[in-house]
Amino acid sequence: MDYRGILDIIKPDTDEINQIEKISSKLIKSINKICREENLNAEAVQVGSVAKKTFLKGKSDIDIFISFPLSTDMNVLKEKGLEIAYKINEEYNGECDEHYASHPYLTCIIEGYEIDFVPCYKIDDAKDMKSAVDRTILHTRYIKSHIKEEQIDEILLLKRFMDCVGVYGSEFKVGGFAGYLCEILILKYGNFENLIDEVSNWRYGTVIDLEEYGTSDLFNDPLIAIDPTDKNRNVGAALRSDKMEEFINACRNFRISENKLDFFYPLKKENISRESILKDFNDIGGKTYIVEFEIPEVPADTLYPQLRKTEESLSEKLEEEDFKVFKSGYWTNEKDKGVLIFNMEVYKLNNIKIHYGPKIWVRQACENFKKANGPDCYCLNEFLVVNKEREFKNATDYIEYIFKRENISHIKIGKNLKETAIKTFKIYLLENYLKTLNKEDSNGFLDYLDDFLHPSQHTRR
Amino acid sequence: MDYRGILDIIKPDTDEINQIEKISSKLIKSINKICREENLNAEAVQVGSVAKKTFLKGKSDIDIFISFPLSTDMNVLKEKGLEIAYKINEEYNGECDEHYASHPYLTCIIEGYEIDFVPCYKIDDAKDMKSAVDRTILHTRYIKSHIKEEQIDEILLLKRFMDCVGVYGSEFKVGGFAGYLCEILILKYGNFENLIDEVSNWRYGTVIDLEEYGTSDLFNDPLIAIDPTDKNRNVGAALRSDKMEEFINACRNFRISENKLDFFYPLKKENISRESILKDFNDIGGKTYIVEFEIPEVPADTLYPQLRKTEESLSEKLEEEDFKVFKSGYWTNEKDKGVLIFNMEVYKLNNIKIHYGPKIWVRQACENFKKANGPDCYCLNEFLVVNKEREFKNATDYIEYIFKRENISHIKIGKNLKETAIKTFKIYLLENYLKTLNKEDSNGFLDYLDDFLHPSQHTRR
Repeated sequence: MDYRGILDIIKPDTDEINQIEKISSKLIKSINKICREENLNAEAVQVGSVAKKTFLKGKSDIDIFISFPLSTDMNVLKEKGLEIAYKINEEYNGECDEHYASHPYLTCIIEGYEIDFVPCYKIDDAKDMKSAVDRTILHTRYIKSHIKEEQIDEILLLKRFMDCVGVYGSEFKVGGFAGYLCEILILKYGNFENLIDEVSNWRYGTVIDLEEYGTSDLFNDPLIAIDPTDKNRNVGAALRSDKMEEFINACRNFRISENKLDFFYPLKKENISRESILKDFNDIGGKTYIVEFEIPEVPADTLYPQLRKTEESLSEKLEEEDFKVFKSGYWTNEKDKGVLIFNMEVYKLNNIKIHYGPKIWVRQACENFKKANGPDCYCLNEFLVVNKEREFKNATDYIEYIFKRENISHIKIGKNLKETAIKTFKIYLLENYLKTLNKEDSNGFLDYLDDFLHPSQHTRR
Repeated sequence: MDYRGILDIIKPDTDEINQIEKISSKLIKSINKICREENLNAEAVQVGSVAKKTFLKGKSDIDIFISFPLSTDMNVLKEKGLEIAYKINEEYNGECDEHYASHPYLTCIIEGYEIDFVPCYKIDDAKDMKSAVDRTILHTRYIKSHIKEEQIDEILLLKRFMDCVGVYGSEFKVGGFAGYLCEILILKYGNFENLIDEVSNWRYGTVIDLEEYGTSDLFNDPLIAIDPTDKNRNVGAALRSDKMEEFINACRNFRISENKLDFFYPLKKENISRESILKDFNDIGGKTYIVEFEIPEVPADTLYPQLRKTEESLSEKLEEEDFKVFKSGYWTNEKDKGVLIFNMEVYKLNNIKIHYGPKIWVRQACENFKKANGPDCYCLNEFLVVNKEREFKNATDYIEYIFKRENISHIKIGKNLKETAIKTFKIYLLENYLKTLNKEDSNGFLDYLDDFLHPSQHTRR
């Protein structure tokens, strides 16, 4: 296959690279100057995809780590590291935001580039690691020293392919493949096309162990990619099984597709209107309920797993109550609205349910059951049973019940969502809910619903 | 407990016994006379509950067996036996009907009594048995020689109790306890009250082996009562597990009841009207469908098991199609109508169902599934799946489908019902069906539905 047309689009050109290198080295010099002036034994290092030259055109996130000797006190590192970052930001008239990974770091916009300044320890071996970010330097060093020049194009093709089929990015919104994992995969399989073939044969528990550490038994994940810089770490740990499955499926689809190049472009969606989405839901049948609540100000990586957990737990509970969930999901505008979606196949049940007691053969248990449940007990298929009024006849009755403060502990709800969910939750039929959304939210949500309705569309062309 | 009041009602008085003995001995003499005249080496024997004096007042079915020596040819026995019966019927101006057990016999009404004349072989040991009716003489002989005079009352109490709680009678309509089984139980437990206590502790597979044959391992039935006249026969084989369970439950209820005597009277039913029945169904919720079809002229013992089999099979199939049957049943007026009842908790499903393929990890199987199911396949919980239109969205669609000639083999339908069911079946909502019934059928069916709705009512007072 000829990928030159794709590479023209996704590979940064000399101009872009030069500019990024120019600003990066300026910033590094400035940091090192400050360190010398302040007599700090610290040093700026460029890391990440920019350092490795594996970033996609226009997606250069510049990562500059301020590395301190291992002897530095952790509090000094945190304080001084952040102080230097703030000084640089001021020096370059940047705009900045403090973030928090294993410790605080600064994200700045300087001369139009987004740049992370991250304090860390300077280590040569993962066993000396004091904070999770420390290993980034090792990763950058490993990839730079092992990747062949021509493999950079293969990495770019892989990242673009993954992005277009919806499995790229280790942030929790996606739960897909991290950039570093892509690089490891190309090191393993040599090039993009060979990778496509190999991934098509992946099994649950596939092991990639570049350095042959033989430590894969430590892990029980769908994909086990031993970190070549740390034999006790699985780079694939954050990859969700569903994203791995989608990737395998996409690779297989790619192999048999007659429109291979289309896999490198984002899915073209048909005109999505409120009417077309509602028609599709109507074609499925059942009823679709929306639970909307306000969300607190938390990072997306906190928000998405909590929404997911809440949806999965409530879905499970609905099924336990004999309501049948055809498909459920979650969505957020990442600003103020969290939304759970339940497409219910069975949303209304009988007023009565059969409450099972012991087997009729066990006398004492039957006598106890009868005492507890009164004289209407009867025999059914070897069991003593009694008809009881159902507490929840409609799925919405149950949801109303669950979001009461005294009942919320029945589901696993994200801890940051709990308060606002209890106070602000509302239940809608989908058709009514759509009318409440402003233009922007409506576009975002309809786009999400389109994927919800057509789960195969991203992984094929 | 003082059961004299009950015994006054259920025990035949001297008049009744004398009259029965009088007519019986007249008939026996007449038969033996014919045999002598025709030079037949056969002999009339009185058997059954009348012979054993264990019949309930007014329920004297007189059984007279015409017994032939073992050397008699089977065809001669059948022909001559029936011939004699017809002659007697004529002699006494009776009305008669030919029936068929293991071979033909005659049921006559003579002087107001119902009398069965059954040809059989005269045997002294079950191992010589040539036809199933032959052992009746052995049963009668065994009970008469083992029962104590005072145990007759206990047997009568037991039969009456079983009748009033709905478990008496081995005919297939009931599937309960045969008279002979009642007698064995009293021989085992001594008297009625002790029996109540012992039955309360019955387990699945309880063994009663009066003659200590030690052959219980031959049988895998809920109740194993080795025939004292035939170690290879379980007298409890025809007892359905549900009737055994109901009996255990009734015995336990009797023990703790404060109205023990009420157990010896038929259940007093509240006024049952169409409206009250429909209200009760409405209180349960869901929808109740009736499938009605014409029935052929077959004995009740043929009809009931076939209706039962059909109902159970269709019920199972409905569940396989994801419809949820809350409770199902069958009824017949034993003349022209067979009826299946399905109280459906889930009677409508989504238009779409998820069709599961292989696990995503199995490449070749996935490729085959994709070839068969087109490009819309997607990953769901490790499986490759595809959405498919449901063939049956409503329970009634499925029932309509099943009763078509080309599909009827999907269910196990009674062989005598098949033709008429295919040709005449109709599906109704219960409320509409009730309007189609004449007064007599309506009364019978409403009474049945009352039991359907209140399954505990017969086993307690």
